[in-house]
Amino acid sequence: VQSIPESLQKLIEEFTRFPGVGRKTAQRLAFHVLKNTREEAESLANAIRAVKEKISHCSQCHNITERDPCEICADPKRDRSVLCVVEDAMDVIAIEKTSEYRGLYHVLGGLLSPLDGVGPDDLNIQGIEDRLEDVKEVILATNPSVEGETTAHYLTKLLKSKNVNVSRLARGIPMGSDVEYIDEATLARALEGRVTV
Amino acid sequence: VQSIPESLQKLIEEFTRFPGVGRKTAQRLAFHVLKNTREEAESLANAIRAVKEKISHCSQCHNITERDPCEICADPKRDRSVLCVVEDAMDVIAIEKTSEYRGLYHVLGGLLSPLDGVGPDDLNIQGIEDRLEDVKEVILATNPSVEGETTAHYLTKLLKSKNVNVSRLARGIPMGSDVEYIDEATLARALEGRVTV
Repeated sequence: VQSIPESLQKLIEEFTRFPGVGRKTAQRLAFHVLKNTREEAESLANAIRAVKEKISHCSQCHNITERDPCEICADPKRDRSVLCVVEDAMDVIAIEKTSEYRGLYHVLGGLLSPLDGVGPDDLNIQGIEDRLEDVKEVILATNPSVEGETTAHYLTKLLKSKNVNVSRLARGIPMGSDVEYIDEATLARALEGRVTV
Repeated sequence: VQSIPESLQKLIEEFTRFPGVGRKTAQRLAFHVLKNTREEAESLANAIRAVKEKISHCSQCHNITERDPCEICADPKRDRSVLCVVEDAMDVIAIEKTSEYRGLYHVLGGLLSPLDGVGPDDLNIQGIEDRLEDVKEVILATNPSVEGETTAHYLTKLLKSKNVNVSRLARGIPMGSDVEYIDEATLARALEGRVTV
C-alpha cells in the first residue's frame, strides 16, 4: 500500500517472520516501534544484536549461555548424579521454574524425526555418553509427541548397556483439568499409569 | 531465572513492552531472534533503527511519511475537494485498503479525551482550517467510541461556520455479521439510520 512508508513496510515484513505473528500483529508491533522514542528503539535494536553476539552453547550440556560452562553446569550445588535430557533451552527454563529439579541438563537441540531427515548425528546425543561417569539416573524429558517418543526410545536403547537408571516424565491428566474434557489418549495413558494410594 | 542468559532476559523484557505481548509471547519472540542467523538479527535491528531515522510527519496532512509532503498529498490524481479526518496513520492504511477513497487525509494524532487531559491543542486540529480552500466535503472518520464521538462533535461545530459539507462514516451492522448476535447499541443505530430501498 502506497500509504505505508518503505522503512515501516520493511519492519512489518521483518516481524511477519516471527512465529505466530500474522500481518495485523506485525503491523501493530511496527507501529509501536514507530511510537517509541529514538532511545527506546535504539535499546531494542541493541538488545537484538547483543543476543546474537553474547549467547553461545555450553560445551557440556549444550544449553544456551553467555559463559562456558553455563551457570547450571558450573554450580557446585547441583546434583551431578542426575541428568535430565531435554529438546531445547525453553524446556530447561520450564523445568527450572518448577524449582523441583536440582540435577544437571543435557540439551539435544531437537528431536529425532526420520521424516524430516533429522537423525542421531544431527543432535547432541554423542555427548550424553561422555557425561555418564558420575550419573546414576537419566531422566528423559522429551515431549509426549511422535518425535519425542521416538527420541526417548532411541536413548533408552542407547543407555541400556550403561550402568544408569533411565526414567521418563510421568504422563497423565494435567493439574487443574477436568477428567470429563481430557482427550482419550491422555486419559488412556493416565489409567494405564495409575498409581496405588 | 538463572537458566536464562542476561542478554536474552533483556530482550524478553524489551518485547514485553509491546502492546498485547505477554511474558510467554515475548519469550517466544526472543528465542526466534536467538535462532536467527547473525545477518537476520542485524537486518531486524537495522529495520528498527531505520523506522525511527527515516519516518517523520507530513507537514500538510500529518500522516507518517519518509518525504514531505507525503505521497498522498503530493499525488496530483487525488481529489482535493474531499478531506477525510482520521485519528492516526493506521486508519489511513485501513481506508486506503478499501480502494474506495480518492481524496486527501488529515491525521489528528489522537482523539479528544478530557478525562485523559487531551484537548484540541494537543491534536492537529488547527491545521484543518488552513486546508479548506479547495475542500467541498470533510468526512469525519473517527472511531464510534466516546472519544471518537466527542472529537467528531467538536469538529462539526468548528466546521459549521465554514463553507463545507461535513459527513460521518455510516454506522450500522458490519458486513457478514448476524443480526441475531449484534450488540444492542449497534442494532439500535442501524435501525435509526435505516435506508429506504
